[in-house]
Amino acid sequence: MPEKIKRLALIGIGLIGSSIARGACEYGLAEEIVVQTRRPETLEAAERLGLGDRYTLSAAEAAEGADLVIASVPVGAYGAVAEEIGPVLKPGAIVSDVGSVKAAVIRQVTPFLPEHAHFVPAHPVAGTEYSGPEAGFADLFRSRWCILTPPEGTDAAALASVRAFWEGLGSNVETMTPEHHDMVLAITSHVPHLIAYNIVGTAADLEAVTESEVMKFAAGGFRDFTRIAASDPTMWRDVFLNNKEAVLEMLGRFNEDLSALQRAIRWGDGDALFELFNRTRAIRRGIIAAGQETAEPDFGRAAAAKTV
Amino acid sequence: MPEKIKRLALIGIGLIGSSIARGACEYGLAEEIVVQTRRPETLEAAERLGLGDRYTLSAAEAAEGADLVIASVPVGAYGAVAEEIGPVLKPGAIVSDVGSVKAAVIRQVTPFLPEHAHFVPAHPVAGTEYSGPEAGFADLFRSRWCILTPPEGTDAAALASVRAFWEGLGSNVETMTPEHHDMVLAITSHVPHLIAYNIVGTAADLEAVTESEVMKFAAGGFRDFTRIAASDPTMWRDVFLNNKEAVLEMLGRFNEDLSALQRAIRWGDGDALFELFNRTRAIRRGIIAAGQETAEPDFGRAAAAKTV
Repeated sequence: MPEKIKRLALIGIGLIGSSIARGACEYGLAEEIVVQTRRPETLEAAERLGLGDRYTLSAAEAAEGADLVIASVPVGAYGAVAEEIGPVLKPGAIVSDVGSVKAAVIRQVTPFLPEHAHFVPAHPVAGTEYSGPEAGFADLFRSRWCILTPPEGTDAAALASVRAFWEGLGSNVETMTPEHHDMVLAITSHVPHLIAYNIVGTAADLEAVTESEVMKFAAGGFRDFTRIAASDPTMWRDVFLNNKEAVLEMLGRFNEDLSALQRAIRWGDGDALFELFNRTRAIRRGIIAAGQETAEPDFGRAAAAKTV
Repeated sequence: MPEKIKRLALIGIGLIGSSIARGACEYGLAEEIVVQTRRPETLEAAERLGLGDRYTLSAAEAAEGADLVIASVPVGAYGAVAEEIGPVLKPGAIVSDVGSVKAAVIRQVTPFLPEHAHFVPAHPVAGTEYSGPEAGFADLFRSRWCILTPPEGTDAAALASVRAFWEGLGSNVETMTPEHHDMVLAITSHVPHLIAYNIVGTAADLEAVTESEVMKFAAGGFRDFTRIAASDPTMWRDVFLNNKEAVLEMLGRFNEDLSALQRAIRWGDGDALFELFNRTRAIRRGIIAAGQETAEPDFGRAAAAKTV
């Protein structure tokens, strides 16, 4: 059992922040939870949902006296949060984040934090296509990976404390450099989101096929892409603006490979198509074996339909 | 209640054929079901599962005397099936298919069918990532669309009979030209499969990111693509070889749009990214409203996990 955090401050209370609040409550990880968000109506929703012990619209007020501050905001907003909370952090306070990009967040945050505080960057690789405090749930992070990217010289006790917190939420924890994280996530998350957004946009803009037809016949595969293309637009805009190099590098690879496939189709090279289509199955089996995906056909949509 | 088919012959008994068999049985759509497939071990599996009343390795034997013959084979194999069954079809027999491409199947099949038989091309827009007779289930087609693409001059009674059969399996039925079908499916199914196969291949081939990392951190979005990239390789090779023009046309659109996004990322055009990411949400809502997708977060994966 990890040591309980005395005062946990949550800056931002959307899908991720509210899931942390619920998980921390459910698994007894914090004695007191202070919830902050900028919009009054979101704060009211958080209060109605009983996500914390205290509620405030001021990040500084929330962070003051907190032992662990976790900010869950779009990747482009961490600098502003750090600037606001930096001056009020108590000695030994730990600051963490949940950003999907790590190098850029570290660059934004570090200049604003006092020497006496510890920054432990974190990224829980979990989420759904829904946003806002109502969308969160305590087990969002269960069996998912949380990646920590501590800069060199990070305080060992602070690192252990953040690790214990995420393990307390049910996550597996891994440590790597911010640069490697940004490369891994570019291919496992950022480029997939980009091409999902892209194909949904392409389909919406066709003249030869109506939007109504796209919707009716979406079960042929298209609908799978619409899930992640329904993710929070602000969050994803910021991801692409802040992980430019890795995304463009991985997108370059994707485009090269797609050109080869396009050529194989044009020239009727069935063997090249079959070879690729045959080996991609193994990757899914590996993901299922790694406990990161359901083996149920169709993601278990049928089961979901029955339980509704 | 539609008139029962006296003798239904199923050529091919994979995911689709076996789901037709189970549905026809469950909903009393046929008096007798004859099951054919080429591989002895698949036929044995079909028999063990009790999918039909008679079993044979010969398509001609299965089709002889049948009132409705439905072939469920890869899109490149319909010509061979038609050549084999053409000579034995009884007067008035109806022949149908389930091919994901329609113009090419019609071109393949038509020359081999006798004047006294009726060909009604069909495409049920349904499936899972699993293959083989064990993977089928009676409700695979329920609430999904089945598209009929009858050539001009198709016998009205034969068309009504095939429509009634699919409605009996729970499908919604729509009619369109083969050419329009192939364009619609290129964007709602074929190109999505191609880019899913492609990104899974790209991820597997990286040097900077290991395959084990791709699998561990797949919950960031990548895993969604692996489902359709686990689909049957032979079936999908044939789809691309037989719907070349429409796929290349839609892929061209996809590439143009992706280049624009790539450029927006390179130049930091956050507004262009936000604008696209914001409007793609509406398409998913439309698909859910059209009854073609679950509204459950994450496709209901959590519910699926609980029922396993």
